[in-house]
Amino acid sequence: MNEQEFLKPYVIGLDLGGTNSVFGIVDSRGEIKATTAIKTQGYDRVEDYVKASVDALHIIVDQVGGIGTIKGMGIGAPNGNYYTGTIEFAPNLAWGHNGIVPLADMFSRELGIPVALTNDANAAAIGEMTYGVARGMKNFIMMTLGTGVGSGIVVDGKVVYGSDGFAGELGHVITVRENGRPCGCGRKGCLEAYCSATGVARTARELLETTDEPSTLRDMRPEDITSLDVSIAAGNGDRLAQYIFEFTGSMLGAACADFAAFSSPEAFVFFGGLTKAGDLLMDPIKRSYDEHVLNIFKGKAKFLISGLDGSSAAVLGASAVGWEL
Amino acid sequence: MNEQEFLKPYVIGLDLGGTNSVFGIVDSRGEIKATTAIKTQGYDRVEDYVKASVDALHIIVDQVGGIGTIKGMGIGAPNGNYYTGTIEFAPNLAWGHNGIVPLADMFSRELGIPVALTNDANAAAIGEMTYGVARGMKNFIMMTLGTGVGSGIVVDGKVVYGSDGFAGELGHVITVRENGRPCGCGRKGCLEAYCSATGVARTARELLETTDEPSTLRDMRPEDITSLDVSIAAGNGDRLAQYIFEFTGSMLGAACADFAAFSSPEAFVFFGGLTKAGDLLMDPIKRSYDEHVLNIFKGKAKFLISGLDGSSAAVLGASAVGWEL
Repeated sequence: MNEQEFLKPYVIGLDLGGTNSVFGIVDSRGEIKATTAIKTQGYDRVEDYVKASVDALHIIVDQVGGIGTIKGMGIGAPNGNYYTGTIEFAPNLAWGHNGIVPLADMFSRELGIPVALTNDANAAAIGEMTYGVARGMKNFIMMTLGTGVGSGIVVDGKVVYGSDGFAGELGHVITVRENGRPCGCGRKGCLEAYCSATGVARTARELLETTDEPSTLRDMRPEDITSLDVSIAAGNGDRLAQYIFEFTGSMLGAACADFAAFSSPEAFVFFGGLTKAGDLLMDPIKRSYDEHVLNIFKGKAKFLISGLDGSSAAVLGASAVGWEL
Repeated sequence: MNEQEFLKPYVIGLDLGGTNSVFGIVDSRGEIKATTAIKTQGYDRVEDYVKASVDALHIIVDQVGGIGTIKGMGIGAPNGNYYTGTIEFAPNLAWGHNGIVPLADMFSRELGIPVALTNDANAAAIGEMTYGVARGMKNFIMMTLGTGVGSGIVVDGKVVYGSDGFAGELGHVITVRENGRPCGCGRKGCLEAYCSATGVARTARELLETTDEPSTLRDMRPEDITSLDVSIAAGNGDRLAQYIFEFTGSMLGAACADFAAFSSPEAFVFFGGLTKAGDLLMDPIKRSYDEHVLNIFKGKAKFLISGLDGSSAAVLGASAVGWEL
């Protein structure tokens, strides 16, 4: 521990999600010392959101010895831009969907500490590099498989932000060029439209409708099926559900083979709801990767599931951005 | 000019191609002070190749004041690995196709100066950043469109080498997933199989065979058609030839849209034989990119043709690697 860490041993992490905003005060070993949360929605103006956040934060900051013990704050947020500390046109935020919100500056002014912000997948990558399975790695790609597909790309020990701060949108490479599924981004055939949790549920509905394959998933109303249901059914030996993970993993593995041609990572690290399927998903990813990847990369990359506890990983990831200040 | 540059004002650049090896002695402004060349082939053993190279080099080194004026040497070579200074299983090199050749070390020992080596497309990217249209850029992607399609990716001012030194093989992302053309790498549907000079010639032969569209290209023997012939015909208003560039550019633009999702570059810089077609190629690339790219990237990236003189660009690129030593 150096002098700086001794005097200011903590950072604040904020996992800013579409529904909840979770705050944690974290030490340099990744131990969460105190935590609190507010609803993300219910504020029309960002000023009110920041005020409610700071009110909630003051209580846990006092618990660890006051703001003087805090080195800085890291925020992981949808459509977050690291270069500018802004959230830009985030479709799921009532106070942030319609413009550019200088959220890092606002928190910094209110709290009197430096604040950094990045998008949620980049925060996850930094969290994994700081506390998780990517410790010590200089080159890896983080894939977050949740409602959408996000990514954080680490090259030579640093997150790739690109010319504008928005690099690393691997959920939006085009995976199916002919008759691709519509994607939330307005285009068609994106990886996210197939390999997110919602993509898996959609694959299930499509297959139930277009095939006669028996499946326990037929006992549910199609619109109620989630990726977790598919995962449970597959685990119980349901062949259609198993095929859905084959299909999804195979597509992800082929996409990762293309990503290898870009940055030749040491590992792909997967995070998010879909990874609960474990080997049901990871085995076809690895098979498909080996089948599709360029010879010189074959057998080199590891395929890992995030080692961070799901509920705290996002906060840890966000806090890790704070250490970089 | 600092003291180091004053005492050792030159670097040697070696453009090691499948046919010729071109050497240049270059100053810090990118002026080539002396040049020489040997055949790359005709040596069974790499030791003989290095000896012939050094013999040729001594003559031009003496012209600029002896080896004491040389800071180092940069080599751009197929299948070159920057981390290790080796050429690994290069299919087109008689003395290098069957193993790992420590070429940088061998030249360093013979000449008594530091030597760095990288693959030819990375050398082109560094050359463009040092002397060309990418001066001052921190994030860009170099695409070399020659016999094959190579790439050099620059992120935050540095070439992306990845975990093993082989990152940046964008010619081998899979562009056509169903019934793709066989590629020299042994797989199918790679960008290189369509958007290289040989890919363009192949597109021409396919279209001549499968359509009745009149074309001046029908006056040639199909196996003699080169991308330059297609380019000349297109320039003369031949509609089939123009369509070939539409097809090629459209595929390149869609691929670049995926690359933007990776590293959000400030520019794509194109180099190599195919760029002689100028706007015939660049216009459909830009159109297709705008059509395919994710909204947040739209209108941001520039599309540039290398500003370096074709005959010296590869030597300049290789020499630029020497300045980094």
